Amino acid sequence: MAYSREALIEAVSAQMPDKRWQHTLGVMETSVKLARHYGADPVQAETAAILHDVAKYWPVERMKEIIEQNGLSTELLQYDKQLWHAEVGAFVAQQEYGITDPDILGAIRYHTSGRKGMTLLEKVVCLADYIEPGRDFPGVDEIRRLSKVSLEEALVAGFDSTISLLLQKRRIVFPLTMLARNDLVRILEDKI
Amino acid sequence: MAYSREALIEAVSAQMPDKRWQHTLGVMETSVKLARHYGADPVQAETAAILHDVAKYWPVERMKEIIEQNGLSTELLQYDKQLWHAEVGAFVAQQEYGITDPDILGAIRYHTSGRKGMTLLEKVVCLADYIEPGRDFPGVDEIRRLSKVSLEEALVAGFDSTISLLLQKRRIVFPLTMLARNDLVRILEDKI
Repeated sequence: MAYSREALIEAVSAQMPDKRWQHTLGVMETSVKLARHYGADPVQAETAAILHDVAKYWPVERMKEIIEQNGLSTELLQYDKQLWHAEVGAFVAQQEYGITDPDILGAIRYHTSGRKGMTLLEKVVCLADYIEPGRDFPGVDEIRRLSKVSLEEALVAGFDSTISLLLQKRRIVFPLTMLARNDLVRILEDKI
Repeated sequence: MAYSREALIEAVSAQMPDKRWQHTLGVMETSVKLARHYGADPVQAETAAILHDVAKYWPVERMKEIIEQNGLSTELLQYDKQLWHAEVGAFVAQQEYGITDPDILGAIRYHTSGRKGMTLLEKVVCLADYIEPGRDFPGVDEIRRLSKVSLEEALVAGFDSTISLLLQKRRIVFPLTMLARNDLVRILEDKI
């Protein structure tokens, strides 16, 4: 069953506090802009953006259950709960909202962690999540500046800021994020 | 064929510039101290320290050949050449210097990268390599201070400084180093 854009917005926004929905509106706007700028499909980008945080405010136990009972990445359960909503979000997008496009599902699944070999759409949504107008963290303006020059440069700066913060806070760094960052650094080296 | 301590020192020191041998003497001294402090075997620690940089000044092509022709970790070849000498060193220690003790070989193999599940001896030699008296880099004194309190705390600080530097320099971070650091952070969390 496919939802219209409006029905999707209504259903997803009902699952989070207004403040988080404002963030989602920002990610939608920025995803569409980045998609246009870098030649991705703006409709795919916006759809992924609408859904990217659908499970963000779900109870942790419910996310855990979904991951365990549906053969999703149980390795994720050893890592920060903040990462779970992305995997669960992609599952829910498919099961409850009828999204079948693997590109959109990938952009939801990897919007927080990134991965090695990110697709154009995955890069767009992941970067939009870093820099949407409501975001405010040290270095965000530099990432915004880079986002006009190179998706990869901007994402490396985004991942580096995340990894540095996790090191400082003595928290576990999700290995996939390190691999995503290494992969983008290699892509940029090859471009030179 | 087993070498005496003196014969080993003579053979290994001949394979590097005097400055690097001075570093090795520092790692030997610090490894023995740390081993005594944390209950590792000082003789194993010193033997690993003598040999840890045996291949450091070998030609890159020779290291590559050894890795390829002896079924060593060819994944390593995709990463910084600075990492190769540790894997090659462990191989050479076994083949040419008759070291059979897997603990000593592991301490040579992982002295640069670390790994998930480091042994006590691996931690000792890896940390000694960070803090031997000749080392001078931002943060080394804090790591020296921590080395008196906790092997794991000191190693996390060491790996964090390496990873931060690699991020800053936009160089690839070896995934095993991230896993080593995450693993130590988890061990420290469990201790609390």
